[in-house]
This record gives sequence, C-alpha cells and structure tokens, in this order.
Amino acid sequence: MNKKLITFEEAKRAIETHFKPADLGSEESVLLESYNRVLAEDLISVMDIPPFNRSTMDGYAVKAEDTAGAAEDEAVALNVVGAIGVGEQPNFKLAKGEAAEIVTGGVLPQVADAVVMMEDTQREDSQLQIFTQVAAGENVLARGADIKKGSIVLKKGTLLGAPEIGVLAALGKTSVKVNKIPVIAVLSTGGEITELGKSLSPGRIYDTNGYSLCTAIMESGGKPVYLGVAADDKEALKKILQTALTSSDMVITSGGVSVGPKDYTAEIVDALGKPGIVVNGIAVKPGKPTTIAFIDTKPVFSLPGHPSAALLMFYLLVRPLVQRLGGRPVTGMKKVKAYAGTRMFSAKSRRTFVMVQLEFDRECRLIAEPVEGGASGAITTLASADGFVEIAENENYVDRGLEVGVWLFRGTAGRA
Amino acid sequence: MNKKLITFEEAKRAIETHFKPADLGSEESVLLESYNRVLAEDLISVMDIPPFNRSTMDGYAVKAEDTAGAAEDEAVALNVVGAIGVGEQPNFKLAKGEAAEIVTGGVLPQVADAVVMMEDTQREDSQLQIFTQVAAGENVLARGADIKKGSIVLKKGTLLGAPEIGVLAALGKTSVKVNKIPVIAVLSTGGEITELGKSLSPGRIYDTNGYSLCTAIMESGGKPVYLGVAADDKEALKKILQTALTSSDMVITSGGVSVGPKDYTAEIVDALGKPGIVVNGIAVKPGKPTTIAFIDTKPVFSLPGHPSAALLMFYLLVRPLVQRLGGRPVTGMKKVKAYAGTRMFSAKSRRTFVMVQLEFDRECRLIAEPVEGGASGAITTLASADGFVEIAENENYVDRGLEVGVWLFRGTAGRA
Repeated sequence: MNKKLITFEEAKRAIETHFKPADLGSEESVLLESYNRVLAEDLISVMDIPPFNRSTMDGYAVKAEDTAGAAEDEAVALNVVGAIGVGEQPNFKLAKGEAAEIVTGGVLPQVADAVVMMEDTQREDSQLQIFTQVAAGENVLARGADIKKGSIVLKKGTLLGAPEIGVLAALGKTSVKVNKIPVIAVLSTGGEITELGKSLSPGRIYDTNGYSLCTAIMESGGKPVYLGVAADDKEALKKILQTALTSSDMVITSGGVSVGPKDYTAEIVDALGKPGIVVNGIAVKPGKPTTIAFIDTKPVFSLPGHPSAALLMFYLLVRPLVQRLGGRPVTGMKKVKAYAGTRMFSAKSRRTFVMVQLEFDRECRLIAEPVEGGASGAITTLASADGFVEIAENENYVDRGLEVGVWLFRGTAGRA
Repeated sequence: MNKKLITFEEAKRAIETHFKPADLGSEESVLLESYNRVLAEDLISVMDIPPFNRSTMDGYAVKAEDTAGAAEDEAVALNVVGAIGVGEQPNFKLAKGEAAEIVTGGVLPQVADAVVMMEDTQREDSQLQIFTQVAAGENVLARGADIKKGSIVLKKGTLLGAPEIGVLAALGKTSVKVNKIPVIAVLSTGGEITELGKSLSPGRIYDTNGYSLCTAIMESGGKPVYLGVAADDKEALKKILQTALTSSDMVITSGGVSVGPKDYTAEIVDALGKPGIVVNGIAVKPGKPTTIAFIDTKPVFSLPGHPSAALLMFYLLVRPLVQRLGGRPVTGMKKVKAYAGTRMFSAKSRRTFVMVQLEFDRECRLIAEPVEGGASGAITTLASADGFVEIAENENYVDRGLEVGVWLFRGTAGRA
C-alpha cells in the first residue's frame, strides 16, 4: 500500500484503469414499474403502428383517382356505400365511384387510399358531392407509418420516461426487459458512530454517512444495502466486508473521523484480493483520506468520515461508476458562471472544493459565497450549499470579484 | 359549456382562478424511504450537533490561556493527565497547567477549550512541550456549532435528497413527517382503445396515453391510479368518473382520436359538479381539444387522444398542478437557444408547438430540426423529440436560420 497522496486527476485515471463495469444482466419488469429503468435490449416492433390505414380526419374514404378534377365550383359525385365507426373493421371494399363515411381513427376500407374532409363535401342520402381533389395518402396515416413491424423502436440503453413507456404501451408490451439495478453495499465505521434508533452515549454521534450515501446511491440509479455500523473488531470487520463484496456490485465504507479504525479498514480492504488498494489518499480538500480499492474489477471505496467530504467524493468519483454499472447515461454536473463574493483560499498543493451558495447581486450578477462551516466538515454544509468552486492545485486563492465556475449539486440529472 | 376556443394564456389564467391546491396532509415515512419526498413541517433539532465540544485534530486538549507565549523557540511545559479515545466520555477535568491527549472526534474534557495539534508538541512520559500558542476554540467544533438545539434545521417544503437525509440521520431521526403524495386518477376513453394484455381486434389500437400519463405523473411526484379504458357507455362512464373524483386528488382522462365519445365525456364531466368545465378547447396546436373542469377546486383534465398532444398538454398545464398538490417546487422547463434548421409553420391563430430534435452543425451552432410525423400525432414523436419551439398566435412561420428558443423535455427536474 503506497501512502503517497496522488492528484485528483491521477485518482480518476486509476479508476479508469481498474474499473470494468460488470454485466449485471437483465430482468423482466412490468410496464408501469419500468419508469426510470434502462432498456436491456433493442426493442423491435412486432407490429405495424398504426396497425391499419387510419383516417386522421372525419370525412369520406375514397379512391383518390375518383376525386380527380373536383373543385369548389366543380363537384364530383360519389355514391356512399357504408359508414365506418371508431374501432370497426369495414367488411366491404369500394368499387369505382364509391365512398364510405369515416371518423377520425377509423379503418380505411380496402381499395380506399385517401380521405376527403367532411367540410369539403355535401351529402343527400347516399349521394355525395366532393368539392376538392385529394391525393393518394391524403388525411391517412398509413399502416406502419409511425412504427414499422421489425424496426428498432427504442435502442438498448434507453432510459424509460413517459414518452418511451407510451411507445411500449402502443406496441402492447405489458412488460419489458430492463437492466438489473446495481446493488451497492454501504458500511459505516468508527468507534464513535452509533446506529439510528439506539440511544446516544456521551461522546458518540449518530451515523450520518450511511444514510446520505444510501440516498445518493438511489439518486444514481443504484440499490443501496445498508449494513449499519461495523463493530470495532478486526475479524468482524473483515467478515462483513467479505460478505459485502460477494453479495454486491460495489462496496462503500466511510470512516469515523478518527484515524485509528480508518487505517485498519484500509489494511483489511487491501487484503481482500488483488489488486487491492490502488489509491490511498488524494490531494484534495475536503476528501484527502479517500482510498479506492479494486478486488478484480469490483470497486471498494473508503470515503472520509466527515459527512460533507464523504458525499462530495461520492458525487465526484463514485456516482459515475454506479450509473455505468446500471448502464445509465452518466450525468455530468452542470456548471454555471458566477463571481466570487469573498476571497476563497485553497489548501496548499491540493485541489480544493469550496462549498458555496449562489445569490444574485443588485446588478443581477450571480455571486458565489462560501458556506459557513465548510472547513469544519459540518453536516449542514452540503445541505445548504448550491454547489462548489474548484480551485486548482497550483493556485493559492481566488480573489473576490473574480469569475468562477460553480458546479451545481442539484439539476444534475436527466429526468426526475 | 362555452365551445369557443380560448388562448393558451387565457387557459392558464382560468386554471389559476379555479385551482386551490388541497391540503393533502402528511404521513410518517421511514428515513431511507424519504428520498424525493417533501418535508411536511419545519424540522427543529432536539439536540446540539455536535453534542459535545469535539476535537477536529489529533493532539492535546488544553486550556488556551495555559499556552500563552508558546512558540517554536519558546516551549511551554504542561503535564499530561489522561488520554481520550474516540467515543469516550472523559471522566476527569483539567487543572491549571494540565493537558490530555485527544483524537480527532474526541470529547474535550471539562475546562479544556482548545486543542494543540500533535505536530506542534513533543512529549516524554507525562511531560509535554508545546511550541505554539492556541486561541480558545482553536481546533474545536463547539457543542451546537453545527446545529443548535431548538433551531430550524430544515424548512417545511424541503425536498429530501442525500444531504438532507444525512442531516436527519445526524439528528437520530428514524422517520420523518412528509407530505402525502397526490393521487391522480387516469382514465382512457375512445371506442377503438384496447387495454394492454387483451388481443387487438382489427380496427383497434392499444392504450398509449394511460401509460404515458401515469409515468408522467410519477415523474411529477404524484401517484397514478390507472383506471383502464372506459366502457363505451354513458352511465358506466359517469359512474367511474364519480368514483375517480371522490377517491383521488385530480382526474385526467384522455380521448380516443374520434370526436364522438370525447364529446360525451365533456358533457358528463361538466355535470359532475360546479363550476364544471371552464376551458373547452384551447387555441393551440397540438392539443386543441383539451378541456379543463373543476369540481369545487379539484381539477379534471380531458386531454386529447393523440399521444404526443396529450403528453405535451400534461407537461405544459398539468405537471405544475401535480407538483403544487404535493407541495413540491414547480420545475419550469429549461430553454436553450438554437437556430431553425427548416422553416417551421404555425397553425393559423393558434399557439403552435413544433417538436424538434437538436443537433450541432459544423460551426457548433445548435440547430433545431422538426421531428418527422409531428403533425400526424404519431406516437414516436415525443420519444424522439428533444423539445419544442413555440410559435406565437400572430406569427405564420419561423424562417430557416432564425434564432429560436427550444423548451427541453428532459433535464427539467430538480434532483433525479
């Protein structure tokens, strides 16, 4: 285990080197439960949509050539031989000079290839006068014009939202093959960390990271499995990590704020398999104690104990991997332009992320103000921040009034 | 029932006049199931966070005044009287000239008010030399500095994401009071519409709108109740609409493409109560046959049969109401600047929404190209569109190359 801090960019490269998203396979999902899931295969239509030549207007189905020459002052006469209501299959076909009344959505009778709109006709009993000439296909949505039988309607990897689920319904699909959801194990460590529901002894604090990380996993399209707080016992920790590793697609631990137990988590993680720990500390602030291991190609992240540092490292490093495991589009964070409201200092030789709130000044310029308590790892920091300003390793500070890019925590996702 | 088309802006004003979001009440939700729910009350902390004066460094807890004058070449000597591990409550207090070893996250003993970092000390047995002077509060997160007992930590109406659920966990909350989710009934009408799972007779099509609308309701933070396809029978339709109205917070029907059954839906809806139908057709394209009724202040939307028109009207008119019923922030659609790739025509005197795909040209300008089949109400239109261009009532077209604003379907939401 190399203990030298590496840069943020090197840490990301190390992840790329070792991470190969496992194929988690697919499962059948009932259509209405498929919202926000990812299509596991190209969806090929088994039918034409519409399944018949459909009228898009109320009027008369005709053979277009029978309307040749019709005009406002030059009526063409046709003989009405039937009427086609909605949902009915016409049991007749048109002969030359014949027409059939039809509603919007109605099935064109055989031979008919166009529809004359109601307002362009006049009728007395079965005698119809037509005052406009129509072309073949006019006011008709031909069988298969929307979706052709045998064509790929939705591609593998499509995230299913309202329009896509509408398309699946149109095809009569009651269920659909979707990617399995990646299962991510979450374990909290640290001698002072207490599980919710237990009473808080003096000197101890409740587990925050377990809950914020589980939620962040859900946001990222994963299924969290919360393993609680690890007992302060080397053998027990080893056992639970081994179980977590075999029963999930990724493991995330977060340390107590103390360095003691944290260090022995790293030792155990490193011994779980090869290659073991590949990143042991990153030159960032906050987030320095982050370690990243791979057991084969399965990632094990050990995030810092400070709640805001743990969640920030999740957003920056872990979320893209959860999304890739689920075959989801990777949602980059959005960046907006703002001006530093205060001089912001960086940590020496570390990539520094300064949590900021955004507000407009009187000239309607967006101003980024550092969030109070950002340095102390206060739990409320992330909840009150709109995003963060990134200061490069070789800069000491960003001066008040300078233009900065602010990466936004919210509004990062595709569809809600 | 006035049958005159009103403008899109008038329709929105009519909604504002009649809609009063009902108070749906709240319910207790287990913490990990509270993701993406809305806090129903101001959350007041019952404890200080941290619950004790906490060291933010490994080092020695001291009384700051005992370090006065300490410097690199001017050590001050203190006597180490104990050590405080993580999660331990110290059972001693410091007398003048005393110090205690402490870890990050450790509880300061009584009287101590600062921590000297390990690297600024030298120790031999119980004799400690300190090479820097510290101020009261230095390297300490004071009890309550993060969250004060009795303070409002999260405000009523807060959408719960990862940081917020972390804050709730820090406070030891195992469950939280959240807004009830609005229940929206969805009914499809139209003689040609067939429920999924049934075989498709000639001349009929599967219910698309029921599924796309249910999904859009989920996206908007509502709970859809899919009532299937209404029987083609006036009395049965009246009964199901009455049940839908009493058992849900909003009712959405969508028509078959035929005008027949659609009209009698309107008649029945109007008779359900006062004020009844307040919008009967809107001067928009697509979406003209949209009707909006209120029974007291409960909305009943009758959307068009064309799938893309129904979903578009949902996004434009219904989604904000679902969000307001749930006490959620209303997510406006995002607009991007693009250039028309083709001349786009509008419908005479109607606000026209042209579905477009966006792509970059060689000069990296974003080009909006109308989606094929947009006019025919094809099901695939919305799934393949990135958004739409809005053309005002008094414009006939937007010329190729002109700058247009494109409203985006995706990326409209807060957190995913």
